[in-house]
Amino acid sequence: MNEFPFLTFDENGSVTDPAGFKASGITCGLKKSGNKDAALVYSELPANFAAAFTSCTFAAAPVVYDRKLAAESETIRAIFVNSGIANACTGSEGIANAARTAAAIEEKLNLPPRTVMVESTGRIGVHLPMEKILKGVDLACSALAGDGGLDAAAAIMTTDTVSKHLSVKVDFGNGYGCTIGAITKGVGMIDPNMVTVPHATMLCTVTTDAKIDNGLLSEMLSRCVDKSFNRITVDGDMSTNDTVVIMANGAAGIAVHSGSDTARRFEAALLQIMQKLAKKQVMDGEGATKFVAVEVRNAPSVKDARLCAEAVANSLLCKTAWFGCDPNWGRIVAALGYSTAQFDPELTDVYYNDKAVVKGGRDAGTPETELAEILAGREFTVKIDLHDKSGDSYWVWTSDISYEYVKINAEYHT
Amino acid sequence: MNEFPFLTFDENGSVTDPAGFKASGITCGLKKSGNKDAALVYSELPANFAAAFTSCTFAAAPVVYDRKLAAESETIRAIFVNSGIANACTGSEGIANAARTAAAIEEKLNLPPRTVMVESTGRIGVHLPMEKILKGVDLACSALAGDGGLDAAAAIMTTDTVSKHLSVKVDFGNGYGCTIGAITKGVGMIDPNMVTVPHATMLCTVTTDAKIDNGLLSEMLSRCVDKSFNRITVDGDMSTNDTVVIMANGAAGIAVHSGSDTARRFEAALLQIMQKLAKKQVMDGEGATKFVAVEVRNAPSVKDARLCAEAVANSLLCKTAWFGCDPNWGRIVAALGYSTAQFDPELTDVYYNDKAVVKGGRDAGTPETELAEILAGREFTVKIDLHDKSGDSYWVWTSDISYEYVKINAEYHT
Repeated sequence: MNEFPFLTFDENGSVTDPAGFKASGITCGLKKSGNKDAALVYSELPANFAAAFTSCTFAAAPVVYDRKLAAESETIRAIFVNSGIANACTGSEGIANAARTAAAIEEKLNLPPRTVMVESTGRIGVHLPMEKILKGVDLACSALAGDGGLDAAAAIMTTDTVSKHLSVKVDFGNGYGCTIGAITKGVGMIDPNMVTVPHATMLCTVTTDAKIDNGLLSEMLSRCVDKSFNRITVDGDMSTNDTVVIMANGAAGIAVHSGSDTARRFEAALLQIMQKLAKKQVMDGEGATKFVAVEVRNAPSVKDARLCAEAVANSLLCKTAWFGCDPNWGRIVAALGYSTAQFDPELTDVYYNDKAVVKGGRDAGTPETELAEILAGREFTVKIDLHDKSGDSYWVWTSDISYEYVKINAEYHT
Repeated sequence: MNEFPFLTFDENGSVTDPAGFKASGITCGLKKSGNKDAALVYSELPANFAAAFTSCTFAAAPVVYDRKLAAESETIRAIFVNSGIANACTGSEGIANAARTAAAIEEKLNLPPRTVMVESTGRIGVHLPMEKILKGVDLACSALAGDGGLDAAAAIMTTDTVSKHLSVKVDFGNGYGCTIGAITKGVGMIDPNMVTVPHATMLCTVTTDAKIDNGLLSEMLSRCVDKSFNRITVDGDMSTNDTVVIMANGAAGIAVHSGSDTARRFEAALLQIMQKLAKKQVMDGEGATKFVAVEVRNAPSVKDARLCAEAVANSLLCKTAWFGCDPNWGRIVAALGYSTAQFDPELTDVYYNDKAVVKGGRDAGTPETELAEILAGREFTVKIDLHDKSGDSYWVWTSDISYEYVKINAEYHT
């Protein structure tokens, strides 16, 4: 059964699928590997936009720059992203470098001032090498192409093992439609908590050719971020650089108005694309071998449900047990117990997929052999039912923690 | 300079150093390894006592049993500890088994009812094999000896690689003195938050031959737990079974009264012994290769200082960087930034020992070679100065996270 018959996804799609967008991905020389390290996404028309940024107190320079721009500008034209260096904890020089990068693109592409956003991901505390960056700006502007989205997706990768991109065609059912495209990267320092204005270093650029005013775009982005990127965690560490931006350039000739069926379909599409990309991030989490959905239901409140889900999803003991294919539900109940959530332990049930492991706070008696098959899989769900009549719920997506995670993060020097 | 000239520590000491205590450590057969798995600590005289237990909602059966006993009994005579099985999430049968164990010891040693506490550590959700336990009770009672403290320390170990014990002679300066002895175990599921009544599975039994009333003993234990076991974290996971109990049997013939110099010396001794044992737990943390003190000073409030210290101490990215001997201060400031503490990032300084790595929220410029020596060491301190005039402070002790941690916890099946 297709829950969204009006949506057609393209796994090979990206930010250049919507009409009126170009993109590029090039090499400035920021990475020892020599891999692509800068991406540009460009709208041929002034684009309405909305953004969500990390809630980290130490927001990186590009986040500081973009937040101000987002508050002042009505439309934007482009987003430039470098990978390899985060430009975080770089003081006023860092902010000046962010501004200088944006201005160089505005000049090169003959755009009005304050219409280019900049994003960075990589090592904290290192200054952008501006000579390389400015050469990169030239290259990126020259390389802009109507099919450049996949290059851009590749250029924003850091420890990602696969590039992450997707597009969806939305049929509004009235003879009209639009396209939404997106690229994103993870995959460590991932526990976003973005305020429409998000968090990990996760970066996501979304484009659409629908016409939507900034207010509605911001409302929709906020709701979708809260049910996608803000629901994922790899290591519980939030980044200084997390940023999600959506650009809506209207090139499809269809306007999306608040409260309309068109808006409902658009938002459903936006949520689907962001959830699918958020899931890809967790699947590609540093060293991850498992994708685990933690679902809490029948909690006394959403806050209690969230405390429970996040405690389990961030428990190092649960995550290492999953890596070992060990159902070890004792670690799950211990995490619930220290979550500070209010609930009755004697009413607590825990399931792996549809197999109960805890009933009423005690061993459900399911044979380990029946659980072994579930735990051996790449994906499973931990369901926690607290049996409170309030019936509130929350879910989080997480990964396991493996030797490879430790290796990546013990050896990640620049 | 000796800060405590009235204290004489004995690294080979334990719970049987104070007068009037006996102990034993024997094998019931709860561990596949065949290692010792049950310990008994016994006071020849009725002992005043105070206890602190885990704040986990899923408190284990022995915790439930002991809490009730602590509320009802004026004195106790013995503490029985089994390792290998946690007797947690075992429902009413678990509590009945705890009670049956305690009663068996009371009968065997001819003690009044409700004078024996029981503690467990190991796998959650498994019932105690009572036949083995009751044979163990007989063995443990028969083996009680005035020099049995080290056997008891060995018997409570789980993933501990060394047994942990210590004693201290306290000179009250008035011709009198007393002795305090203790045994403890860690070393995973360690992030205690005990309420005079604590948390990891860390267990600690303290004995003294001073005479102290239960009220004063409880006040002192609470303050000392808050500055020792509640300040340590290995993996951020709090246990269902954490328990600290102190017994004071008065056999030294000296009474400790509230507000006296004697009480100040006793409490200084108790804090020292508990801090030294807490440090041993972190040093022996599962897979740990580093001991890291995280000290936050000049915070706007103790709460903000604590949020900062705990965020850094529990950051998986900081802990894996330390394992890699990488100063990576970017991960420290990112953790401070997401801690939710209030502070000014541009006033933030960070040091490794006495080498600044961040000044005013930016790279302090200390050459990596100068930091490499510090990071290569077994112990170092991360000092964070927030430069707020309120001047509040907090500290936490933590370990790194290594391949070995993942191995231990991915492969820990019973």
